[in-house]
Amino acid sequence: MNLAINVAKAGVGQTTPNPVVGAVVVNEGRVVGIGAHLKAGEPHAEVHAIQMAGEKAENATVYVTLEPCSHHGKTPPCADLLVNSNVKRVVIATTDPNPLVAGKGIAKLKTAGIEVEVGVCKEQADALNAVFYHFLDKKRPYVTLKSAITLDGKIATVTGESKWITGEDARNDVHLYRSIHDAILVGVNTVLVDNPSLTTRLPNGTGKNPIRIILDSTLRTPLESQVVNDGKSETWIIVSDQVTEEQMNKFSDKKGVRIIQLEESNIIVNTVLARLGEEGISSIFVEGGAEVNGSFLKEKAINQVIVYLAPKLVGGKLAPTSIGGAGIESIDDALQLTIKSVEQLGEDIKIVAEPR
Amino acid sequence: MNLAINVAKAGVGQTTPNPVVGAVVVNEGRVVGIGAHLKAGEPHAEVHAIQMAGEKAENATVYVTLEPCSHHGKTPPCADLLVNSNVKRVVIATTDPNPLVAGKGIAKLKTAGIEVEVGVCKEQADALNAVFYHFLDKKRPYVTLKSAITLDGKIATVTGESKWITGEDARNDVHLYRSIHDAILVGVNTVLVDNPSLTTRLPNGTGKNPIRIILDSTLRTPLESQVVNDGKSETWIIVSDQVTEEQMNKFSDKKGVRIIQLEESNIIVNTVLARLGEEGISSIFVEGGAEVNGSFLKEKAINQVIVYLAPKLVGGKLAPTSIGGAGIESIDDALQLTIKSVEQLGEDIKIVAEPR
Repeated sequence: MNLAINVAKAGVGQTTPNPVVGAVVVNEGRVVGIGAHLKAGEPHAEVHAIQMAGEKAENATVYVTLEPCSHHGKTPPCADLLVNSNVKRVVIATTDPNPLVAGKGIAKLKTAGIEVEVGVCKEQADALNAVFYHFLDKKRPYVTLKSAITLDGKIATVTGESKWITGEDARNDVHLYRSIHDAILVGVNTVLVDNPSLTTRLPNGTGKNPIRIILDSTLRTPLESQVVNDGKSETWIIVSDQVTEEQMNKFSDKKGVRIIQLEESNIIVNTVLARLGEEGISSIFVEGGAEVNGSFLKEKAINQVIVYLAPKLVGGKLAPTSIGGAGIESIDDALQLTIKSVEQLGEDIKIVAEPR
Repeated sequence: MNLAINVAKAGVGQTTPNPVVGAVVVNEGRVVGIGAHLKAGEPHAEVHAIQMAGEKAENATVYVTLEPCSHHGKTPPCADLLVNSNVKRVVIATTDPNPLVAGKGIAKLKTAGIEVEVGVCKEQADALNAVFYHFLDKKRPYVTLKSAITLDGKIATVTGESKWITGEDARNDVHLYRSIHDAILVGVNTVLVDNPSLTTRLPNGTGKNPIRIILDSTLRTPLESQVVNDGKSETWIIVSDQVTEEQMNKFSDKKGVRIIQLEESNIIVNTVLARLGEEGISSIFVEGGAEVNGSFLKEKAINQVIVYLAPKLVGGKLAPTSIGGAGIESIDDALQLTIKSVEQLGEDIKIVAEPR
């Protein structure tokens, strides 16, 4: 099952709106087939694994990270495939929360006389698809808030210098996260100050670019900014009802740039998330700045927090921190998190946490 | 040797100005003696261990965390004791940097025909006495800077509320540190705002109270504050040359309160440390606030950094951080640290780091 979970990871970020799934076929103690679901519309993990196994699928045990589907979607039901392949036993990490499947896949297997075991490595398998389940349930993107801070809590020095707080390994990790998210989100101040490209730049040159989303109430994004001109990915600029048609028309010849106007005078994060959900965005990677992060905290619209902690001290009463805004007044009202993992990345420490 | 290091730890913070040392005597594979140095002037670790072993010391192997002394100090030389006890072999973790010993203890053992091995678990043994070696070398106290911050880098909310950022385990750990330090140091603002007792309050009620040192340039420490009145430990108030005799005289009937006046108009951390060194203070635990911490950072007068990281987000552009002051302008000039350990303490994470 560990192998099945590892192969499933190959699909993270590229199967939207489907979950990632891995499958391994074992016959007489030997791995005879491995498969993963890699893209919506393409074959499911079980199909790849059974194909690889060929006739060795007969009497084999299949380890699959998610309950096999029982319905005809873009591809035929995997439960039927397993029955027709005469496998002996199916070990499933977690059941499918999709109401179209929900136990029906397991029932189909059992009816056909196949031994079924459920719940092996459930936690890891569920974690694989946290985004998928969240989107399925809430119809809103799963929000990951990222920051890079010094050991004294600063994201930059008093002069605003932030290149680089963290080392290369941590920065590469950020690019990995960009590649597995549907979209990256920043405030217009970040565009004005840094003019970033917000693309995925992994050392090996791979990784898809996320859609770039700019929260920009009054449409101050410069026409000459990188995200508007480089054509490396779509750029969606979210504006308030204060912005005129004339202002928006200036962007009309910018390829890949889309302006989404909300029916409110101040951008409210929860409205943004509902709208992005409608647009099919299942995950966003929020990279600040401090005011945007403050808005997400204020509305408690955070599903995961990733902090890269650099072993440096810069000091400064006026040096900026990762989350600004008005802030929460009482410790009792703080957003309480649970640490999910702590790991060393080069000289830095990476902490992953989730709201309780 | 691991056992010897562990028993040595029993003496941390209570052997000043001596190093902590642990010793274990093993005869035919059985532990026959265990000892630790617990207080200056009292017997050394080897003495306790050899006494416990009795006649089983003959032909035994002695594991000791520090090179046995060869000179007559407050107690007779341990190297002689080992020779006279007819031990067969001595395994030493690290040599003694004290020029009065420095290899002479080892030489004495070898001359007597005892097998000697040096360097086993050297790193752990050296870490045990980082404070001791620092003080011996620099004649200034070893400075540990402690802070408790949220995952977004704040030490309090925008309203200044800081009780409690961290959980009970982390707070108990702070009290453990207080108990093993010669002194605790804060700025007068901390006294004015919190009126803290700055004592050691461990769950089991044990642990010595450190001397309380207040940096108070213009002597604003209130006569009615806890540190001035509770008599639980000495309180040293460091003042500048701006303070008059008359001001200082107001404290003359306060038992255990001592005012140390520096010959400068602004308190400079390095002057304070030199003075504390002269006073025999080998370690200080700096608990802020932000401005005091900023002064220590500015003068790079930090030997160890301990950060308790609470899995909470409070936000707020104006919420305070652990190190204030003017701050360092360029990332290149940041105080670079090396992470020594990362551990979970209840729900919080404890990070220990040292300047490179």
